[in-house]
Amino acid sequence: MTQVLAARAGKVTPEMEAVAAAEKLAVEVVREGVAAGNIVIPRNIYRKAIRTCGIGKGLRVKVNALIGTSSDRDQIGMEARKLAVAEAAGCDAIMDLSTGGDIDEMRRTSLAKANVPVGSVPVYQAVIEAIEKRGSIVAMTAEDIFAAVEKQAADGIDFMAIHSALNFDVLKSLQTDGRVTDVVSRGGAFLTGWMLHNRMENPLYEQFDRLLTILKAYDVTLSLGDAIRPGSTADSLDGAQLQGMIVAGRLAARARAAGVQVMVEGPGHVPLHHAEATILLQKRLCRDAPYFILGLLATDVAPGYDHITAAVGGALAAAAGADFLCCVTPAEHLGLPNEDDVKDGVVAARIAAHAADLARGVRAAWERDLRMAQARVARDAEGQIKEAIDPGKVRAALMEGHGEECAICGRECAVRAASAYFGLA
Amino acid sequence: MTQVLAARAGKVTPEMEAVAAAEKLAVEVVREGVAAGNIVIPRNIYRKAIRTCGIGKGLRVKVNALIGTSSDRDQIGMEARKLAVAEAAGCDAIMDLSTGGDIDEMRRTSLAKANVPVGSVPVYQAVIEAIEKRGSIVAMTAEDIFAAVEKQAADGIDFMAIHSALNFDVLKSLQTDGRVTDVVSRGGAFLTGWMLHNRMENPLYEQFDRLLTILKAYDVTLSLGDAIRPGSTADSLDGAQLQGMIVAGRLAARARAAGVQVMVEGPGHVPLHHAEATILLQKRLCRDAPYFILGLLATDVAPGYDHITAAVGGALAAAAGADFLCCVTPAEHLGLPNEDDVKDGVVAARIAAHAADLARGVRAAWERDLRMAQARVARDAEGQIKEAIDPGKVRAALMEGHGEECAICGRECAVRAASAYFGLA
Repeated sequence: MTQVLAARAGKVTPEMEAVAAAEKLAVEVVREGVAAGNIVIPRNIYRKAIRTCGIGKGLRVKVNALIGTSSDRDQIGMEARKLAVAEAAGCDAIMDLSTGGDIDEMRRTSLAKANVPVGSVPVYQAVIEAIEKRGSIVAMTAEDIFAAVEKQAADGIDFMAIHSALNFDVLKSLQTDGRVTDVVSRGGAFLTGWMLHNRMENPLYEQFDRLLTILKAYDVTLSLGDAIRPGSTADSLDGAQLQGMIVAGRLAARARAAGVQVMVEGPGHVPLHHAEATILLQKRLCRDAPYFILGLLATDVAPGYDHITAAVGGALAAAAGADFLCCVTPAEHLGLPNEDDVKDGVVAARIAAHAADLARGVRAAWERDLRMAQARVARDAEGQIKEAIDPGKVRAALMEGHGEECAICGRECAVRAASAYFGLA
Repeated sequence: MTQVLAARAGKVTPEMEAVAAAEKLAVEVVREGVAAGNIVIPRNIYRKAIRTCGIGKGLRVKVNALIGTSSDRDQIGMEARKLAVAEAAGCDAIMDLSTGGDIDEMRRTSLAKANVPVGSVPVYQAVIEAIEKRGSIVAMTAEDIFAAVEKQAADGIDFMAIHSALNFDVLKSLQTDGRVTDVVSRGGAFLTGWMLHNRMENPLYEQFDRLLTILKAYDVTLSLGDAIRPGSTADSLDGAQLQGMIVAGRLAARARAAGVQVMVEGPGHVPLHHAEATILLQKRLCRDAPYFILGLLATDVAPGYDHITAAVGGALAAAAGADFLCCVTPAEHLGLPNEDDVKDGVVAARIAAHAADLARGVRAAWERDLRMAQARVARDAEGQIKEAIDPGKVRAALMEGHGEECAICGRECAVRAASAYFGLA
């Protein structure tokens, strides 16, 4: 029985209890959220014990990190180290996006090492194997795709990004209106190429019930991939994007009806004044399904710093209702991320998530900010280190400092000058 | 004649023309903005030729960088290098906040080397000299303060942060309501200590007309310092902050009436859902004076990454109407910034400013994003380098890459897979 079916039957699962405890909520609130489809708890029935992660309405905003081999760099060891870096930096989930080397071995390594939910994009493996076995992406068959989904589900993958919300209506919209950056989603681009070459509908759309049957058997959470997310601010909120949202909304409803947990993925490059409308429309059209975003990248012109552009847009989007932030690293648009990039991406996304939690009124977030402010006033270095998003960095910086003296103003300490008169500790 | 008096007399100055050209606006729009006090052009009449910088309504959001010696580290050479780094990274103005070593020499170095407007906080020098000459901050006299203002104006300083909007009404509000972090503004803290110890009103408030006379003589732009900006998210939008805004609004009106260009400074630590109200109230109470903010820091808990927390809050604030972003470096709350920190702070603030320009509908910003997106689709490395906020970083990363191949997806290029079917360039 999946989490959503259990919740609808009035049953509280250990996973719901774990989420309630982590979020300091009554378990009934979590059960109701799961039953309504506003909360998902990604957890394959065959997955080993992990730190449970609830995503959705009323919960802390969560952060996902990306790892994975590529055809240019397929070392499993390096990706395993990135996984460890991402977890140490505080991510709530991991996606293994491998497209190079031994993809099966990498996935099993990710599942064995991660203490958080692990997601994947099965179509990547289907594409790579089609190239290897049949010589090209367009020679891939529907059977290849579903075989990859089934294999990865059987391995224990907790959530899967699957681009079912791409069909010929969406592509027609793309072709009619035109765009600056047509398709920048990797999975979306593979499927678009496949559909247009073969003049066949997307199997993940056409055989959606077949997909649901597999996911339900393992309680894999479906993450409806945003195949046509805008890849530039110029393309944000165009007809094709909205067409994709409409399709995703209908599929989300079908997944729920089938007892499959579902969240929906979103952009992408979005200027700040589009952020609220983007979230509103997604939540409206997708029946308040949890919203998983890659960004929002608030501008196109900052390659090398896209962890910052994503923190800017991600914070605003999460404050407006997005539930799950996918890390963007400084290497986005430039190349493959290294371990430092992964850490920077997770930290920036956690800042965005926490800033949004404050705006959403999450009590634990306010308590943490308050403890940090009090530690600053008290010049309590250990207190500041404890509350920091990156305690190691703060410890190193404060230890370089002046011992009893704060390093910032030296003897002309501003806080001390005034606090002497306010009788502060 | 100051810029604002010239504008009111219907005269177009070379500075207004330079701003109009840089912003691609009709010069009459700029003149009207200066006349109304919605735009300032910081430029001391004795300052050498510099890149003119207009700040305010209808203009690009601008970025200010901070440099300055301290009692712990007074090397003028290092601060001059930071100035060069900040300008190379694209800041629009510099403030020299020196409090150590030869403050006069440092200021003259800043003015000689900078090609952008240079600001200062004269009370810092008055405080340091009071400690040296009289043994303590509280022994400082009103004459010391005004002498520092006059000396710095005569040297050519273009804009000055002056904490005139701090008076006993504001301190009473602070004491009545209480706060987590009472006073975190350095100038505000010095003056608070001085006022409470001496039981005397703030000279910069009490003798405001005397201040205006000096500033007007040199056309120094007054930047009304936010002496009681919130130093924690818990203190945002409290009574003391609003009391300070009310006082600042009245003083801004008096400055304008006297023919002195004026902008107003603001927070500080502000949770995201307070950002719009903060800007709205400031603009309302301060008669649409240009708004110069330090942040907004969207959370307290990310020391080591406050350039990111400031980019998050700064972008949102600027989209809502803030005009001038003061860089916050990764070293904020931890120690003194080095050259890399200054660069990171400027880049992050420029990302926030540009994201806000997009939201504000600045045409040049949209054109730049579009050129970047087109360069990506065309896999035009030089085009991407040219449009990037940090071209050097992009060049280095792309050169590390794969030549004709893009480094991101390797042979499974997503953009190529789809674009083959869309007939893109």
